[in-house]
Amino acid sequence: MAKEIPYKIYLEESEIPTRWYNVRADMKNKPAPLLNPATGKPCTLEDLEPVFCRELAKQELNDTDAWIDIPKEIVDFYKMYRPAPLVRAYCLEKELDTPAHIYYKFEGNNTSGSHKLNSAIAQAYYAKEQGLKGVTTETGAGQWGTALSMACSYFDLDCQVYMVKVSYEQKPFRREVMRTYGAKVTPSPSMETEVGRKINAEFPGTTGSLGCAISEAVEAATKQEGYRYVLGSVLSQVLLHQTVIGLETKAALDKYDVVPDIIIGCAGGGSNLGGLISPFAGEMVRGEKNYQIIAVEPMSCPSLTRGSYVYDFCDTGKVCPLAKMYTLGSGYIPAPNHAGGLRYHGMSSIVSQLYDDGYLEARSVKQTDVFEAAQKFARIEGILPAPESSHAIKVAIDEALKCKETGEAKNIVFGLTGTGYFDMVAYQKFNDGVMEDYCPSDEEIQASLANCPKV
Amino acid sequence: MAKEIPYKIYLEESEIPTRWYNVRADMKNKPAPLLNPATGKPCTLEDLEPVFCRELAKQELNDTDAWIDIPKEIVDFYKMYRPAPLVRAYCLEKELDTPAHIYYKFEGNNTSGSHKLNSAIAQAYYAKEQGLKGVTTETGAGQWGTALSMACSYFDLDCQVYMVKVSYEQKPFRREVMRTYGAKVTPSPSMETEVGRKINAEFPGTTGSLGCAISEAVEAATKQEGYRYVLGSVLSQVLLHQTVIGLETKAALDKYDVVPDIIIGCAGGGSNLGGLISPFAGEMVRGEKNYQIIAVEPMSCPSLTRGSYVYDFCDTGKVCPLAKMYTLGSGYIPAPNHAGGLRYHGMSSIVSQLYDDGYLEARSVKQTDVFEAAQKFARIEGILPAPESSHAIKVAIDEALKCKETGEAKNIVFGLTGTGYFDMVAYQKFNDGVMEDYCPSDEEIQASLANCPKV
Repeated sequence: MAKEIPYKIYLEESEIPTRWYNVRADMKNKPAPLLNPATGKPCTLEDLEPVFCRELAKQELNDTDAWIDIPKEIVDFYKMYRPAPLVRAYCLEKELDTPAHIYYKFEGNNTSGSHKLNSAIAQAYYAKEQGLKGVTTETGAGQWGTALSMACSYFDLDCQVYMVKVSYEQKPFRREVMRTYGAKVTPSPSMETEVGRKINAEFPGTTGSLGCAISEAVEAATKQEGYRYVLGSVLSQVLLHQTVIGLETKAALDKYDVVPDIIIGCAGGGSNLGGLISPFAGEMVRGEKNYQIIAVEPMSCPSLTRGSYVYDFCDTGKVCPLAKMYTLGSGYIPAPNHAGGLRYHGMSSIVSQLYDDGYLEARSVKQTDVFEAAQKFARIEGILPAPESSHAIKVAIDEALKCKETGEAKNIVFGLTGTGYFDMVAYQKFNDGVMEDYCPSDEEIQASLANCPKV
Repeated sequence: MAKEIPYKIYLEESEIPTRWYNVRADMKNKPAPLLNPATGKPCTLEDLEPVFCRELAKQELNDTDAWIDIPKEIVDFYKMYRPAPLVRAYCLEKELDTPAHIYYKFEGNNTSGSHKLNSAIAQAYYAKEQGLKGVTTETGAGQWGTALSMACSYFDLDCQVYMVKVSYEQKPFRREVMRTYGAKVTPSPSMETEVGRKINAEFPGTTGSLGCAISEAVEAATKQEGYRYVLGSVLSQVLLHQTVIGLETKAALDKYDVVPDIIIGCAGGGSNLGGLISPFAGEMVRGEKNYQIIAVEPMSCPSLTRGSYVYDFCDTGKVCPLAKMYTLGSGYIPAPNHAGGLRYHGMSSIVSQLYDDGYLEARSVKQTDVFEAAQKFARIEGILPAPESSHAIKVAIDEALKCKETGEAKNIVFGLTGTGYFDMVAYQKFNDGVMEDYCPSDEEIQASLANCPKV
């Protein structure tokens, strides 16, 4: 007889992963290498070391080792908020009256409010281990900046966050959380970097952009002795750290002999999606099993569904290596009415290659539909989801309703990456009925793509 | 050999309590009965029924049954966010370099962000079971209003929240969470009730008070067919529901043969503290065991440490029954610079009687010390605590440092009632170094106490 499945499946502390899974090692078609923008040649360790921590640069380039040991210090930190629960959405199933079984991996039970902490603590650890004084980074909405602040505080590292000025002013609470954790938060563009001063002079009164904040953070890292730059998504090292999500998910499902039919994740830079699906995609690329994997992106930033698979700049400032990825062009910025996160112009090179090889499909969804799903989920399952995570909720509900039509009792698993406590301005727009949708025109996307480098 | 204690002790779903423990049944000196303010006689069920749900009124008056069955529907809801973890604060112990073992029961892992949900869902259930259309309540900072909104949404009940106007305007995010859960949130004083209109006419431009919001909520409940008024603390029924905290805590400790030496909780209205300590206090009043129990209150609202144990009004509007409790007088309002919550003028009658009988001690603490402890805890344990909960953290750290001096390996358990995500205005004051302390003068307290009713 099958074991009864509880509302929340918690693994034991001893079941927290002690190795990350590097799916690249098992992929027949490897993701294309990063290119040095100056030479056009594949990046070497020497190219990356001035900007990134040594060990992280090694991880970035490693596409041969399937398993990477997680240092004990990081596992110990994971113990403070992991294992994360895999939740059986009994209430949602009942409300939808679906024969489907719905599960979600909830990564929001920590003060950063999201999965970002999984990589932040790893990056902070390697910086500390290398004897660095501190790290710099950029943050938009502030999820990543918060996670990094927590991680740096734990390892007593200096943390300098360049926060897009408009967010710095409109999201004072996120800023205060970072300050409470001891981070120095600077509105970007600032007068503290050359690039910041230049942009301020050129565009007086500008409220900043993520691209500008990246450029300031990179400059700050390279100009200070003992500092490196760290990033919260997109990079393969970040996706690697996020595989704790997928490994725990798989272990929890295995414990109850549940085989997922559909696995769903939201996709911005791709690291949380990649982390969730890695163990499953690994089985697929090794030819062992088959799953339906769905990446969900916003209609207003549709890199997988409408972008091109080409080499592009990773940042607007064009200072980082070139990556081959599904992209909308590095100058693409979602319309101002877009409140739902997932606003990066490109996609993780690992996710991009898996998508190109047909191991996963992608869907884009309207943000009003996303917030409708978010509100429904909040009321039924009791968790107020982040807008980002709600993209996955939307498609999970769609798939569960399809099952209702067909009568299939599919197992649907999705990633609930975080909570929406700091996104109430967007929820307010939705509650007030003034939220809008945006769908870029083909011309807009083509014009942006025209600026990709010729490689 | 003793079992190794994990960072987080999670009970099984099957170990969620199915009965609440009513410590009054075991107390030799029962809490004094509520009095009908019109007659001066002990309240009967008939007195309470027009305002409170029938079953809740019964629970309020029940001081004979030690165990009350929790309806299955409530247990099912508990399964969405309970059992709550009992966390071993290994990192804090290491940082303090103390031989003490520190544990905390963390109630913040749900969207309401606090323990309030434990009672909100019970009160909503009984309202639904009675066939009511909805409930009314007041909220200050919004923690209780959020919890009640979630609970009402789950049972499809109308939820009307009167929110103190200054909080309504300064805490728009809390308001939006409630709206997202379908609650109607009205700034108080409003023009929708007689008492609200009267206060608005008398004090144009007033930003409201908790006392006024209570009066509006009670009026709204009694003037609408099918509505009742519900309350988030102070009442014995609320404390009863909160005993799930203590029961789970005791079960988790028992599992690892840990006997607490010191149990610490913050005390505002007293329901979370009472819920945490009930199973332990029960052993004490039955003469079976002995623990050191410490109630922690803000120096600016010191009902236990500086109040009188007399009958008083439960609300500023004087519409509710009289309760015998440690009180500062129903007109007492903490100074405006008080940001740390726990601002109720009185104390649960159960906690008051236990205190008067010497089963627990009380301490008052300065809010700058509380926020210093909060920040330390956030950085070390990774959880950003609510200001209320941080009162308990402060004293837990004090006691752990005493152990460091004496070399005693005491087991210290405290209640971490919630998270501080919506309290960043207060944290900002602390981060900016502009937070102040307040200690009321004896004259101020005596003047306020002079207005207690003569019973």
